[in-house]
Amino acid sequence: MLFKNFTVIDENFEIKENMCVGVEGSTIDYIGNKEPEKNYGEIIEGRGRLLMPAFYNAHAHTPMTLLRGYGGGLNLNDWLTKKIFPFEAHLTGEDVYWGTLLGIAEMVRTGTVSATDMYMHGEKMVEAVMESGFKTNLGVGLVCFDRTKRLKDLDDYKNSKYLYENYHGAGGGRVKIDMSVHGEYTSFPGVVEEFADYSRSLGTNMHVHLSETYKEHEECKARHGKTPAAYFNNLGMFDSPTTAAHCVWLEEEDFDIFAEKGVTAATCPVSNLKLASGICDVKKLYEKGINVAVATDGTASNNNLDMIEEMKFFALMQKVKHMDPTVISPRQAVEAASLGGARAQGRKDCGVIKKGAKADLTVINTNLPHLRPVHSLLDNIVYSAKGGDVDMTVCDGKILYSGGEYYTIDIEKAVYETEKSARRILSEL
Amino acid sequence: MLFKNFTVIDENFEIKENMCVGVEGSTIDYIGNKEPEKNYGEIIEGRGRLLMPAFYNAHAHTPMTLLRGYGGGLNLNDWLTKKIFPFEAHLTGEDVYWGTLLGIAEMVRTGTVSATDMYMHGEKMVEAVMESGFKTNLGVGLVCFDRTKRLKDLDDYKNSKYLYENYHGAGGGRVKIDMSVHGEYTSFPGVVEEFADYSRSLGTNMHVHLSETYKEHEECKARHGKTPAAYFNNLGMFDSPTTAAHCVWLEEEDFDIFAEKGVTAATCPVSNLKLASGICDVKKLYEKGINVAVATDGTASNNNLDMIEEMKFFALMQKVKHMDPTVISPRQAVEAASLGGARAQGRKDCGVIKKGAKADLTVINTNLPHLRPVHSLLDNIVYSAKGGDVDMTVCDGKILYSGGEYYTIDIEKAVYETEKSARRILSEL
Repeated sequence: MLFKNFTVIDENFEIKENMCVGVEGSTIDYIGNKEPEKNYGEIIEGRGRLLMPAFYNAHAHTPMTLLRGYGGGLNLNDWLTKKIFPFEAHLTGEDVYWGTLLGIAEMVRTGTVSATDMYMHGEKMVEAVMESGFKTNLGVGLVCFDRTKRLKDLDDYKNSKYLYENYHGAGGGRVKIDMSVHGEYTSFPGVVEEFADYSRSLGTNMHVHLSETYKEHEECKARHGKTPAAYFNNLGMFDSPTTAAHCVWLEEEDFDIFAEKGVTAATCPVSNLKLASGICDVKKLYEKGINVAVATDGTASNNNLDMIEEMKFFALMQKVKHMDPTVISPRQAVEAASLGGARAQGRKDCGVIKKGAKADLTVINTNLPHLRPVHSLLDNIVYSAKGGDVDMTVCDGKILYSGGEYYTIDIEKAVYETEKSARRILSEL
Repeated sequence: MLFKNFTVIDENFEIKENMCVGVEGSTIDYIGNKEPEKNYGEIIEGRGRLLMPAFYNAHAHTPMTLLRGYGGGLNLNDWLTKKIFPFEAHLTGEDVYWGTLLGIAEMVRTGTVSATDMYMHGEKMVEAVMESGFKTNLGVGLVCFDRTKRLKDLDDYKNSKYLYENYHGAGGGRVKIDMSVHGEYTSFPGVVEEFADYSRSLGTNMHVHLSETYKEHEECKARHGKTPAAYFNNLGMFDSPTTAAHCVWLEEEDFDIFAEKGVTAATCPVSNLKLASGICDVKKLYEKGINVAVATDGTASNNNLDMIEEMKFFALMQKVKHMDPTVISPRQAVEAASLGGARAQGRKDCGVIKKGAKADLTVINTNLPHLRPVHSLLDNIVYSAKGGDVDMTVCDGKILYSGGEYYTIDIEKAVYETEKSARRILSEL
C-alpha cells in the first residue's frame, strides 16, 4: 500500500510535510516527497493526517482488562492480596485468551502494535496475538516461594521453555518469548541465576519488575545488602538484554549499572501514580544514556492501555519532579513511546519510519478541533491528542484497525466473552 | 425530551440503573425508575450509555486555543514574556471570538457546558457563548501597573462594568459576569480593594489567580508580609464569592481563610505540571471543607480543554503527593468536576441530576472496549474514559453536541478562522 501526501514523523523524529511512504509486504520500501513510480495497489490519502511510528508498550499485563477498575482505592497490599490475587487464582486459559484479545483491541485502537507482556496462560496469550496480528514480547513471570526448589522444578520455567521452543519467532517474528522474573521479593537468588543463565544461552530478552515501590526497594537492600538492580546484575540477568519495569527508586549506582549493561527502563507513569509508588527519574535516565521506554502496566492500575495518554503523563511528571518545564521534549516522548519500546523488545527493524523498517504505523487524524491550530505538531500529539484520534494502525504492513473497524478482532465477541469471564470469576469468589 | 433506560449518576453521585430523566424546557422535571406518563416528544434511548451531570470548567482562558502548543518547553518567564504576551498583544476582537468558539466546541465535545473564564475582548467572548448555547462566568482580568491610578481610571474596570451592565444574566442566566483580578503581582492594593467593593455592591463573584507558583507566593509575602490569600482577604475580595485558581502553594492559614470565607479552590493539575508550578494539596482542601473544583486552565499550558482527562490527573496527582493510593475517590473527582464547578460559579440549580435542576447533561458511551468490563462504573469514568467517549452534551435542556455533530457551532468555520487568526498574528510578530 502507498501512504500519499501524509505529514510524517521521520526517522529523526522530525516532522516532514507532503510525504509518500510505500509498503511492500511487511516492510517500508519507499519514503520520499515524490510519488513513487511503482504501483502499490491500495493508495491511502493523507491530507490532514499524520503518519507516525506505531507505539510499543514496554510493560503490560494485557489480560488484566478482566480486572479493569477492580479493587480501586485500596492500598497496594490490600489491593493485591484481597482483590487481585484471589481474582487471578480463578483465571482459566479461556479467560486469559479473551482478556488478551480485548486488551489488544484497545491497544490497536490507540496506535500500539506491540506489548512487552508478563502474565499466565501464555499459550492462550500467544493465540490471541497470532490471530490479531499484534506483536508481543511475552514472558511468564517466574515466581518461587520454596527455597529448596531448583529452576528445573518450576512450572513457570517449564512454561517459559515450552513457549520459547514452540512460539519464539512465530508470526514472522511478531511473537518473541522473553524470560520474565516477577521480581526480587517473589523468588530466590538460585533460581534467578539459573534462569538468567538459561536466557543467556538462548539469547533471549529478560523482563522484570524492579524498584517499583520504596518498600520493595528497601526490603531488597535489607535482605541482600544490594539494591534490586545490583542484586539482579549480580545474578547475571543483565547479561541478557533486559527490560526493567517501573524503576521508581533507582539509586545513583543503579543508573550506572543500567547504562553499562544496556538495560531498558520501562517507565509506567500512570500506574506509579495510581498505586502511589512514586515518580521515576526519567531525566537522569536520559543523562546516563539509558534506553527509555513508555509503558501502561496492566489496566487494573491505570486503567487503560492508551500510549498517547501515557506519553502526556510521561512528559508532564518529569517537569514537576524537577520543577522545570523544559525537561522532556515532545520529541523525546514520542521517541520513547515508539523507538524506545522497539529497542527494548529487541526489534531492530522497528520503531521508525524509514526504508527497510517494518511497516508498524499509526495514522492520526490531526484535523480535529482539539488538535488545531498547529503551532507545533509534536506538541499537539503529546499534549493535546487522545488515543481516540488514531485513525489507522498498521502492524507488519497489515491494517489491524482503521476508521472504527477492527480488521482482525471480533470486538463485540471479545467484549462479551471478557465480561462473561469477569462475571463468572466474581461469582466464584 | 426524555432520557429512557439510562444508567445515571444521581444527586448523591451514586450509580442508578435503568432510570428515566425527563427534561422540560431548560429543566429536569422527572427522575425515576418508571417511565413517566407525560409525553416528552423526543425519546433518547440509553442502553449502554451513562447520563451524568455535565462538567463545569472552573478556570479557563478559552480563546487561548489560538495559542495551543505555542512556545512549548520554555520556562515560565520566557514562555510568558517572549511568547504568550507578544502574541496576545496582536489579538483582535475577531480573533478572540473565533478562538472562544473553537474552545467551546472542544468543551462541549468532551461534556463541558460552562467555563469560568478570564481573558480580553469580553464582548466577543459573550457573543460566542450566546450563539453556541454554552455558559460562562466571564471576567476581564484586572491588570494595573500604574500605582497612581484609581479603579475608575482603568479600562479593565470599565470593560467589566460594561459587560456586567449589558450581559450579566443574559441567555436566561447562562452568562454571568464576574469581577476578575489577574493576580497579586499584576495590580496594587488600592485598585483591588475598590474592585472588591464594587463586586460586593453588585453581589457578583470574583475570580483570581492565586499562589500558582512558588515565586509569586513568596514575592507576595516579601512585598506585603502576607500570603496572597491573606492579602486578598484583607482587601475584601473574599467578601464576594470567589474562585481562586491554582492554589498550589497555600499555607495552613490560607486553608483556614478559604474555609471561613467560602472561597472555591479551582485546581488545574495539568497546567500546574506543564509549567512545573507544583501540586495543589487537594486532600487538605477536602479536610478543611473547602469547595473543590477542577479546571483546565488555557490550552497554551495543557494543551486541551478536556475535563475527563483533567479528572484523571486530579485524582492521580493526590495519590502520589500523599503517597497514598486511597486519597481521592472517583466519586470525589466526578463531583469536583461537575457540582464543585457549578457551586463555584454560583449556579445553585446546576451540577446534579435531580428534579428542578437545570438540564446540564453529559451522555457517555460506556459500551466501548476500553470501558469494559464494568467492575466500577465510576472508576471507569475517571480512570479509563476519554473526552471522545462523550456521545451527547446538553446545556439548559438544549443539545449542543451529539454523535459527532455540533448543533450550534459551524465547526469547520471555527477551525478555519482560528487558524487564519493564528497565522496572521504569527506573520505580524
